[in-house]
Amino acid sequence: MIPYKTAAALVPSLAPLQATQAEVFDRIASDVVLSSSLWANVALAGFSILLFVAMGRSLQSERAKLIWVATLLVPLVSIASYVGLVSGLTVGVLTMPPGHPLAGQEVLQPWGRYLTWTLSTPMILLALGLLAGTDRAKLFTAVTMDVGMCVTGLAAALVTSSYLLRWVFFVISCAFFVAVLYVLLVEWPADAQAAGTSEIFGTLRNLTVVLWLGYPILWALGVEGFALLDVGVTSWGYSALDILAKYVFAFLLLRWVAANERSVGGADPLGGTTTMADD
Amino acid sequence: MIPYKTAAALVPSLAPLQATQAEVFDRIASDVVLSSSLWANVALAGFSILLFVAMGRSLQSERAKLIWVATLLVPLVSIASYVGLVSGLTVGVLTMPPGHPLAGQEVLQPWGRYLTWTLSTPMILLALGLLAGTDRAKLFTAVTMDVGMCVTGLAAALVTSSYLLRWVFFVISCAFFVAVLYVLLVEWPADAQAAGTSEIFGTLRNLTVVLWLGYPILWALGVEGFALLDVGVTSWGYSALDILAKYVFAFLLLRWVAANERSVGGADPLGGTTTMADD
Amino acid sequence: MIPYKTAAALVPSLAPLQATQAEVFDRIASDVVLSSSLWANVALAGFSILLFVAMGRSLQSERAKLIWVATLLVPLVSIASYVGLVSGLTVGVLTMPPGHPLAGQEVLQPWGRYLTWTLSTPMILLALGLLAGTDRAKLFTAVTMDVGMCVTGLAAALVTSSYLLRWVFFVISCAFFVAVLYVLLVEWPADAQAAGTSEIFGTLRNLTVVLWLGYPILWALGVEGFALLDVGVTSWGYSALDILAKYVFAFLLLRWVAANERSVGGADPLGGTTTMADD
Repeated sequence: MIPYKTAAALVPSLAPLQATQAEVFDRIASDVVLSSSLWANVALAGFSILLFVAMGRSLQSERAKLIWVATLLVPLVSIASYVGLVSGLTVGVLTMPPGHPLAGQEVLQPWGRYLTWTLSTPMILLALGLLAGTDRAKLFTAVTMDVGMCVTGLAAALVTSSYLLRWVFFVISCAFFVAVLYVLLVEWPADAQAAGTSEIFGTLRNLTVVLWLGYPILWALGVEGFALLDVGVTSWGYSALDILAKYVFAFLLLRWVAANERSVGGADPLGGTTTMADD
Repeated sequence: MIPYKTAAALVPSLAPLQATQAEVFDRIASDVVLSSSLWANVALAGFSILLFVAMGRSLQSERAKLIWVATLLVPLVSIASYVGLVSGLTVGVLTMPPGHPLAGQEVLQPWGRYLTWTLSTPMILLALGLLAGTDRAKLFTAVTMDVGMCVTGLAAALVTSSYLLRWVFFVISCAFFVAVLYVLLVEWPADAQAAGTSEIFGTLRNLTVVLWLGYPILWALGVEGFALLDVGVTSWGYSALDILAKYVFAFLLLRWVAANERSVGGADPLGGTTTMADD
Repeated sequence: MIPYKTAAALVPSLAPLQATQAEVFDRIASDVVLSSSLWANVALAGFSILLFVAMGRSLQSERAKLIWVATLLVPLVSIASYVGLVSGLTVGVLTMPPGHPLAGQEVLQPWGRYLTWTLSTPMILLALGLLAGTDRAKLFTAVTMDVGMCVTGLAAALVTSSYLLRWVFFVISCAFFVAVLYVLLVEWPADAQAAGTSEIFGTLRNLTVVLWLGYPILWALGVEGFALLDVGVTSWGYSALDILAKYVFAFLLLRWVAANERSVGGADPLGGTTTMADD
């Protein structure tokens, strides 16, 4: 039992948290490897936004526009995410638990990455699903399992009480990922075949599956897992994956949609037009 | 006005928060009643996931699959939620305000429960609504009011500045609950009648209404309200309600859907097929 | 490297954060200008809820009901938001970074406003979009860009490491706002023309556009930006904008829907009825 109000005045009460954001900001700014891994994405996301706005301006059909907006949201979320990391707002300093290779040490943890993946990766899946001509149930599955994957990945990164429980969350996150992979590799290819978008869907799905497998591998090798890579290299790893899985992916998708609008501009399989009635 | 950066180095700045997670973890681990209330749900959620995957494998129609995935997400969210509680990541230590029976004392607050209910309870309502053949407006009402109920319940649990305002949030949360009950008790029964799923809907609705009423009652009797029950008993109360309202509910629903797929496999009332055009 | 567990016992570990909520609560309660700006909204939101429930009771068509529930959610979210601010739960104490007019000073930051706008403003756009007869792609654009605007506005308010990055987030938030404005000013007016709801849509859109422009202007002039206005006046500014853009807006919308249900009660453009098939 402690007195309800401590003698401490208001002034210093949030000082520790406040100091941290400014100090993390300085620490990031003074680490060239880490810092460049973040600013490179701010720049590329900004360039992608301008490029994608230009590429999508002439789209007419509802489904093509929906794909375009979902794709455009990927670099939009990304630029906000990376500015948040650079500012230190979404970067914590965590003490690793006993058993972890860096046990007892304080490690910079850019947890904002996981938070914003929760918002950006569903957009990638929405765009892919619309391209394949998904139905509602499959899209719902892909998106909810993807959000589950990101949120439990965030938890895996933030647990500091037990090394074992970090890996338990890692395994749960991977289980959600398996459900996403199932939709990508089994369900949607058949839909894309029927929708006549098989070729481009296949290319983008392969790109997505291969690159997305890189994230849990990096988690395991990086600071959060076995710590074989240091903070800056881990961060560059994620940044490189983001560049390929987000901007390059989105560019290829939009270029195809802009050139083949008629192929995706037909009946919207989510919209309950006549194609739905055949279910 | 304080100097922008305190003299304190980075190292100790987040130490208090860090220490807390590890200490909460130890405190939970050393309390057999509390600890068992959490691990029991981890085990049951894990078993439910495996069982439900097996039960749903042969479903074919879109609506049946959607019900299945929504139902499967309930134990998936639950296992992540309970691992979060066990780790201490989503458990706080709050000092109760003057007026509260435990005023000035520090109490373990597993606020992660409220956060994850925000994600799992909409899935229960989605499954029930699809079973009843809901339209979009009723489903939107049920889900948004349910999210409002969970988020304001979270706020009720986290307010430590005023005993009165804890109960104000409790009342707001109950007002959202009344809206959910209205959909469950007035709107959907008529839809289920029309859809021919009246019997199973009635059973599952009764189970849901009775069990969901248990949560605010437990809040009032438990540590968060009048504190007639201690932390471990309160936690077991929520865990028991979760077991019945989540895994048992989901099992009954899936067993029925698997055996009666044709009854739910017809036109999707949310999808705008021919049944929609009659609205 | 610090020892994994500090000598500090559990008891004082969260004391700083705890003390803050109670102290912020007292500080708000003792500032008549600030306090009245919050309680006025609690009262008006409560009154609006009762009024709107009464106004919507006789609505029959699905689309009219959907507009009604979305509109009703605006004061429901609002009352929860303002009780959260009054309690101190969603109000922080931030030290402004060098370069800011209040550099080094601690400022009360009611960040809960941004969080709850993320939930309430999509409801306003949903109601407006349904009134205009939007398609899925435009509604998706408006809502996702709006959420992006609110979340990056929250980030702008919480960054304390760099004055420049506060404004970078402000600019990103405004870029999202431009996308929302594009839908409101270019896309939906044409839809409303086709749907025969042009007059009321025009009125409500003008009200929304003018008032929503007030928020970034107030951010720039208030404590968060150039600090030309103090905390109490800034808070009254937001509260006055909320009163007009939320309760008055919602009242005008619901009054029109209640009197003209037939005009919005037709085919739901999001529902894939026959009007969808013509896309």
